Parts: sequence; structure tokens; C-alpha cells
Amino acid sequence: MHSSRAKEAGGAPRGRPRDASRDDALRKATLEVMAEVGYRALTMDAVAARAKAGKATIYRRWESKLELVIDTCNELVSRSVPEPDTGSVAGDLREFLLGYADFLTGPSGKAAQALVGELPHEPELATAFRDSFLTGQRGMLRRILERGAERGEINRHAPLGMVNELAGATLTYRLMLTGEPIDEAFVDKLLEQALLPLLN
Amino acid sequence: MHSSRAKEAGGAPRGRPRDASRDDALRKATLEVMAEVGYRALTMDAVAARAKAGKATIYRRWESKLELVIDTCNELVSRSVPEPDTGSVAGDLREFLLGYADFLTGPSGKAAQALVGELPHEPELATAFRDSFLTGQRGMLRRILERGAERGEINRHAPLGMVNELAGATLTYRLMLTGEPIDEAFVDKLLEQALLPLLN
Repeated sequence: MHSSRAKEAGGAPRGRPRDASRDDALRKATLEVMAEVGYRALTMDAVAARAKAGKATIYRRWESKLELVIDTCNELVSRSVPEPDTGSVAGDLREFLLGYADFLTGPSGKAAQALVGELPHEPELATAFRDSFLTGQRGMLRRILERGAERGEINRHAPLGMVNELAGATLTYRLMLTGEPIDEAFVDKLLEQALLPLLN
Repeated sequence: MHSSRAKEAGGAPRGRPRDASRDDALRKATLEVMAEVGYRALTMDAVAARAKAGKATIYRRWESKLELVIDTCNELVSRSVPEPDTGSVAGDLREFLLGYADFLTGPSGKAAQALVGELPHEPELATAFRDSFLTGQRGMLRRILERGAERGEINRHAPLGMVNELAGATLTYRLMLTGEPIDEAFVDKLLEQALLPLLN
């Protein structure tokens, strides 16, 4: 790790085992290819061609297509949806939901849809997706709710697990099924009509 | 319509333009093929072969693959989830959700998953799915909530549209993303922790 960073800092143009901007270009290519053809039809060759990179470069960094795709999702979501800490549970939930809405409706949305659509046919992908992406998203929401509970903002009997599940479910439902807008107006409606009343 | 029924009743073995049991066998074959290969890869030939029927038989009844698939979904859901009328909004919601849960987790579940997964890539399918299946399901929930409101069981300020959306979203989320059980225990938890509190 240290040696690769040193090489990166030194600007060595070739043979670098890790290069953050190169990794990002490969992740971006992965997203684009996945948005176009889906997970099943995605190949390392297509990602390499899109990123104008050698296939060996990809394999040096990710062992398999599964690893590449899951890492791409996790990296993207952790950037799009940074853990909020506004000081209130309402503020934190709103910031989280707006970030998540941006992620789902932005350039990654098509890729996310393609990925979710294939989970039923790809048990290995489904397990990896649940263990990383979904667990990460739920963990962030859980910490938001726990901090709210510690500050005394939440009713002691509030169904925290259910509120957590509803927050993820509603946005995904609009993305995958109804096609209705996932925007600020919807986030506010969800908060005011469902999530906050259930916490109070 | 009348003449076809007459032929059916007469038991004419060939050339019947409509035959309910034949239609059902074709819908069943459609579901099976869709569960295996998905919507995009489904062909009328594969459905015909599965049902041991001629392709012409299918085309006499459904003009296109899209029409066949949408009709299959609608027919199935209207049988799996009959409109409840128990006399209370809690009873009606529970019966609706249990029926819907059975539908999603039963033999049709795999086909439903395959279909939903392909909506993002199939705009025509998505539109037909929303206009029939989704509109039907939401209409049933809306009538359940309206009857509850007329009986005075629901707070005048309750967010009926949001409750309707949450009911569909949570079951779909478990089916498509989390893989968690969609069973009676979950239906009761959803009612007690979210839907009924939001209505009261």
C-alpha cells in the first residue's frame, strides 16, 4: 500500500499497482457498460475497451467482475451519500435521502437499476450486494436513528427497524416500478407524512 | 363471445377461438418461461412449445408478447389478490397484503421478479405494467382506504396516498432487494408498526 502510494506520488507513468484516478476511470467505465448491457452481459473486455485500458490492469486491481461491480457501487454510494451529521434526526434523514435520491437519479441510476433487476438471477451478486451496499446503507440509517434516540428526539417505542426499511423501500420502488419522481418534493413528503410521524 | 362459449360448452375439440382452460394453460406456460429466461428472451415459440400448443393458437388470443405477458400478470394477480371487504380497514389491508405476499412468494414470484427487473430496459413493457398491474393494485388499496375513511376509521388528515405507496413498496423491496421473508409475520409488523399508526 505504502509503496504504491509512493509511486503514485512520484508520478511514475507505468506499472503502478494502484492509481486512484485510474481506478476511478475503470469504475466509471464499469458503470457505463452496466447501464448499457446490464451485469450479466458485462465483460472485463468491454470495461477495458471503454476505459482504454488493458485487461491486465483491471485484473491487477479486482479479481473478478463481481468484485469490480460491487466495489464500483460501494465507492459511488459512499461518495454520493456521505454520512450526514447535522445535529438533528430530521436534518440527517433529509440529507441522507437527498443524497440517495441524487445517486439513484444521477448517472449511476441506470446502472443501479440494471444491477437490481438482475439480483434474482444472480445469487452470488445478490449476496455480495446485500452484504456490502445494502448493509452499508442500512448501517448509515441505523446510526442516524440511534443518534436521534440518544438526543431524545425519538419516541422510545418508535419502530426504528421499520423506519429504516421504509426509507430504502420507497425510493427503490419509485426507481424500479412506478417511475414517479425521486426528488426533493418526494423526500420532504416521505419525511413529513411517514418517517417523522413514526418516530415521534 | 357467445358463439365461442357455445362451442366450448359443446366440447368442440378444434378451432375454438376462446377456451378459458386453454388460455390458462398458455398463461401458465408464459409464467414458467418468463421465470426461466425473463421477458426479453421470452418468445411466443417457447410459450407454445411449453404449452404444447400451436403458435397460431396464441396469436388468436393475444396480439403480441407484450399483451400476453401483461394479461398473464393481471389475470394472476386478480385471482391471487381478490378485493377484500372484511368490514374494517385493518382487516382489508391485512387480507390484501397477505394475498399480495402469497402472489409474490408463490410460483409467480420468480416471473414477477424477472418482469420488474426488466422494466428499466423495456419502456413499452414498463408503461403497460404501470397502466394495468400497478394501477389495478393501487386502485384496490385506494378503495380499501376510502371505505375505511367513510366508516370513520381513519384520521381525516391521514396521508392515504403515502400509505398506499408504502404498502406496495415494502413488499417489492423485500422481493427485489433484501430477500427478507415476505410472510404473515412481516405483514403484521408492517400493519402494526407503520400503516395503521399512520392512518390513526
